[in-house]
Formats: sequence, C-alpha cells, structure tokens
Amino acid sequence: MNIDDIDTPAVLIDLDIVERNLRSAQDYANQHGLNLRPHVKTHKLPRFARAQAALGAVGITAQKLGEAEAMADGGVTDIFLPYNILGLRKLARLKALHGRVTLSVTMDSQTTLNGYAETFSDTARPLTVLVECDTGAGRCGVQTADDAVTLARAISAHPGLRYGGLMVYPKRGDPAGTQAWLTTTIAALTTANLPPPVVSTGGTPDFLRAAEVTHATEHRPGTYIYNDRMQVGWGHGTWDDCAMTVLTTVVSRPTETRAILDAGSKALAADPVPAGGHGRITTYPDAIITALNEEHAMVDLTACPDRPRIGDRLRVIPNHACVVTNLFDCVYLMRGTEVEQVADVTSRGKLT
Amino acid sequence: MNIDDIDTPAVLIDLDIVERNLRSAQDYANQHGLNLRPHVKTHKLPRFARAQAALGAVGITAQKLGEAEAMADGGVTDIFLPYNILGLRKLARLKALHGRVTLSVTMDSQTTLNGYAETFSDTARPLTVLVECDTGAGRCGVQTADDAVTLARAISAHPGLRYGGLMVYPKRGDPAGTQAWLTTTIAALTTANLPPPVVSTGGTPDFLRAAEVTHATEHRPGTYIYNDRMQVGWGHGTWDDCAMTVLTTVVSRPTETRAILDAGSKALAADPVPAGGHGRITTYPDAIITALNEEHAMVDLTACPDRPRIGDRLRVIPNHACVVTNLFDCVYLMRGTEVEQVADVTSRGKLT
Repeated sequence: MNIDDIDTPAVLIDLDIVERNLRSAQDYANQHGLNLRPHVKTHKLPRFARAQAALGAVGITAQKLGEAEAMADGGVTDIFLPYNILGLRKLARLKALHGRVTLSVTMDSQTTLNGYAETFSDTARPLTVLVECDTGAGRCGVQTADDAVTLARAISAHPGLRYGGLMVYPKRGDPAGTQAWLTTTIAALTTANLPPPVVSTGGTPDFLRAAEVTHATEHRPGTYIYNDRMQVGWGHGTWDDCAMTVLTTVVSRPTETRAILDAGSKALAADPVPAGGHGRITTYPDAIITALNEEHAMVDLTACPDRPRIGDRLRVIPNHACVVTNLFDCVYLMRGTEVEQVADVTSRGKLT
Repeated sequence: MNIDDIDTPAVLIDLDIVERNLRSAQDYANQHGLNLRPHVKTHKLPRFARAQAALGAVGITAQKLGEAEAMADGGVTDIFLPYNILGLRKLARLKALHGRVTLSVTMDSQTTLNGYAETFSDTARPLTVLVECDTGAGRCGVQTADDAVTLARAISAHPGLRYGGLMVYPKRGDPAGTQAWLTTTIAALTTANLPPPVVSTGGTPDFLRAAEVTHATEHRPGTYIYNDRMQVGWGHGTWDDCAMTVLTTVVSRPTETRAILDAGSKALAADPVPAGGHGRITTYPDAIITALNEEHAMVDLTACPDRPRIGDRLRVIPNHACVVTNLFDCVYLMRGTEVEQVADVTSRGKLT
C-alpha cells in the first residue's frame, strides 16, 4: 500500500523520523543520568510504547485509566498515572490494573489519598503514590514544602501504600524556578526522613533542558516522538523532526489566493499557537491556514509563488500532534511513501 | 440508571430541551414557509435525525460521506452533502450511497463537476447537484453570478446529473448581504433559463433571521438542537436552551481560588469564543475556565461566593457542542437525572 492509496484526510506517521526522535531523546536521558518515562498521550499506540521501552525507557506515563488499561492490553508492564484518581468506579479499575502491571499514581490532597488508602491494603503489594507539586505551572499540585511533607508522611502511614517521591508538571521555560522549588521541598522532606525516591518531571518543550533540574530522576516527555508546530515554535526540534502530517486534498480554489482543504478542526484540531495559523503545509510553507471550520481549512496563498490546484494532495504539520491523534481511529505508519502498517489508535478517546 | 452512575467526564444530553429546540425550529420554519434540513454534525445520532424528520424536516445535511453513510445505515432516507466530493474512492462511495437514499451534493468548480459527470450516467436516476456560492463567508463557493450560471449550465448539460439550485454557507450576521448576492445571481440564472429549484442556506446563529433571506427555500441549522456557549454568545438561545453538558469531577483544589476538573481539551475541545474561557459551569456561573490541557481544566473561582470541593461533580456547557460530540464514543440521553439511553455516536470520527 502506497501513499496514493490513502483517502484524505488521514494521519501519516514517518517511522524514520519517529525512530530518530526516540533514539535522540533516550541518548539525552542516558547522557544526563535521567530515567525516561515517555508519555503515551501523543501516540496512543502500544507499538511505540514497546519501542520506547526497548530503547531504555523505564516505563510509560498515561494520563487516564482508560489509556493505561489499553496500554496494559498492548503489553506494557510499567505505567505511571500522574493524576488524582477519584471515585469508587475508577478506584476499582485502578486496583484491577495494579494487579496486572507495575503501577504508580499521584495525588495532591488528603481526599484523593483517602480513596487510595481505602482501596489498597495489600502490604505485600502496596500501590506506589507520588506527591504532585505545583512548581509554577498553575495546574494541580501542593503549593508548599510543608504540604508536600504532610502528604508524604500520610502516604507512609498507610501500609497498603508506598511513598514514591515527587511528581512535577513544570512551568514551561523555567527550569530554574522548578529547581528552586524542589531544592526547598526536598530539604524539608529529607529533614522529615522522607527523601523522595523518585523526582519525576515532564514536558517536551523543556526536555532538552531537563539536566538543569538536577533534582529530577526521571522525565516524562510526550510530544517529542512526533513533534509539531507548537514544539518547533518553542524551539524543540525543526520541521525535519516532525513525524506527523495530516494528508489532505484541495477541494476548492474559490479565488486566486484562497484554497480550501478537506481537513478542518475535526482533523487538525483548533489548538492555537502563538504564531497564529492552524498548521504548516509542507510543500507550501508560505501558505497560511487562516481558519478552520469542522470540515474545511481556509488557506491564504497570497505569499506563495506557486499555488496548488483542486485535487492536489498536501501534507500539513499540525499545531498539536497529541490532540490530532485523538481524532483519528487509525494512523498510517509510513516508510517514505510506502505504508508499513495501518495502526488502530487503541488508546484514542479514553476519557475516563 | 441515574446521573450518579455515570463516570466522568461524560456528555449528557437533556432530552426535554432537545425536543423543545427541535419543535421551536420547525415551528419557525413552518411559519416562514422554509424547508428545514438539519445538519447532523452536531448530534451525529440517527435517532435525532429521525426525530427531526418526524417533526417535518425534508431531509438532513451531512458534511462528510462517512457521516452520511452512517445516517443511511440508521434509517435516514434523504441526505444533502454540501461538499465538493473529489477522487475515485469517494466518488465510488457516493455512487453506492446514491443507490440507497435520495442524495444531493454541491460543487464550485469544473474539476469537481467532471468527477460527478464521469461517475453518474443513469438518466433515470440522476444525481442532484447544487452550485455552492460564496456570498461573503470566505469559504468555498463561486464568487460571481456569471460563474454560477456557467456551472449551472454545465450541470444541466450532463444527462446523469440534475441541476438542483444554489447552496450557501452564509456570512454570519449579514442576511442583507446574502440576500443581495442571491438577488443578482438568481436574476442571472433566471435570464439563462436556469432558475434555482432550491436555494439552501445554513447556520444556527442566523437561523432565526432566515426569513430575511427571502430567496432561501430551505435552511440547514445544526447546533440549534443542543446550543452551546458560542451560540448563546451570538444571541441564539439562552442557557436554558443548552441541552448538552459535560459532566466532570473536581480532582484538585490546589489553592483557595483554583479548581481543576477532569475534563480538558480532549473532552471540552479548544474552540475559542469571543468572551474567552472554555465553558460555563452551570452551578458556578461566576467561575472562569481559564485554560485547558488535554486532561485538565483550570478554573478560577475568585468571583464565586461558594466554591466546589474535591470530588464534587459539575456540569459544563461547552463552547462548541459539535466538536464535543466528535470526541465521545457515547452520550447519555437524560430525562432530568435519569438516563433514558446510552447512545453510541455512530457518525463520530467519520473524516472521509
């Protein structure tokens, strides 16, 4: 099967670029003594999770139970769920998953911890729990070293739980702030006889600055496997490192300077980037995707010396690869223009 | 099954509000002598397409072949595909669909028309083709009356095709502009002995101003069945007319003024609205959903006199209902707090 046999819109993944991206991230981690624990949200494919492990990753990261369950079904054996898992239904599933794989989770409140403590009581097989810290990103996480100590101590008090350390989703572009926050908190934990066994940080944009956070023992990059317009804008990789493209067809050329593609927000997703626009057309880099409706992309060709015709097939590097993955039931894994595999996105749409 | 039995995040559809919205739109259409041809992109459920027909809709609108095929599988018998269908694979599917339902399509170029002409040759069962017109929205469509006449004449010249009239996706808030464009074009078509049998317009925001476009014979509103924050912002309906909510759980309360919900851009979608924010929390209308990551919503509670606790379940009216529908494999159809049906979203993710 060849690229010409693929109907549009469709997601193409360049396997050569994927392999290069995986290798160079693992090399960076090895060089800096960091464990790599890739976030599978970007690819949602057990095949790539296994490839990451084969290169040296210590396990994977998944954000939702459903994604983690699909990964376990696909042969993944070590999963970190950096999320506050709440409610009896999810806790029962968490317990079942804990019976199948090496599992760790996070929490940032006594409420979440209570649920874990009530669900897990097997002292021979405790659930590993890390304390989530907000070092400046403004998402989940304890705000102070004191709160981290309180929760770390509370985990340690439950025989069915094991204190796993600290987890951070850091503020982008601020390794120094993350480092400072962790320095204070780790000092307080060490004083309390609770030095963190693991300090897990994440995010692709600052992955190549991970060594600046010397406290970190592991990193959870996700998007680095594919990269996208957002990452390139933030300085992670170049266009040549972008493994995901959305194959589209020009369905209309209403004016000299306007083209319409058959890929709208249902294919490219509406996530914005600071530079504006909704993707980069590889063969027309001067074109601007000015707007998306659900099934149409509006393209301004004013700056393009050559211009596409109706029926032409164009490849678009999307703004945000992870959300595009979540929109397609399958992706085409490519070697050049040949299809090596049509892969079902088994972790797609796992919301709970 | 009750709302308490539903794990989060999940989409809830209030059937009482749906029925009221469907009825009032049909009433408006009847009152103004307009045919209603609802766009199913919003609900993607054959059940609601059949309900729309039962109330008097002349058929449905679907944007992609895959959506139309799923609707035909669900018992829908009259489908309008207002899209330029290009390529041998899609044309073969279009031909098969034409054998199953009453079908009509659009085009805005000789290239698209050539594909239809080469595919459809049965003079006893011609394919109905409308000319798509750009009256100011800046999407697909011919730009001038002359071009409309040229294409209308070209359709008429093919015995396997039937000239169906004009289709417009109008510029929002500009019924007068649409009316003026159509006045000129219909005069030119009439002079050329090609008066349009159908003039189809669309869009929920201006649906209740549809009567201002006196040339229109049918309207294709979509979002009116559910409504959303975008429509309410544009003046179509009130919060009480919003049938879709996303049920979420508060998973973290990192600070006095911040809550984190378990519904991010994978559940609420990133589509922006002019007012800012990413949804309206029904029980905390003063809360602002300031940002979305894929699995987290960040909520600013500063303006809220009462504030939710960890574990509380909140309902969010999303910015854009149609794209939320496309993110969930199933939706919960509710009568008050009771689940009447868990409906598979059969037309979800139909991209080709």
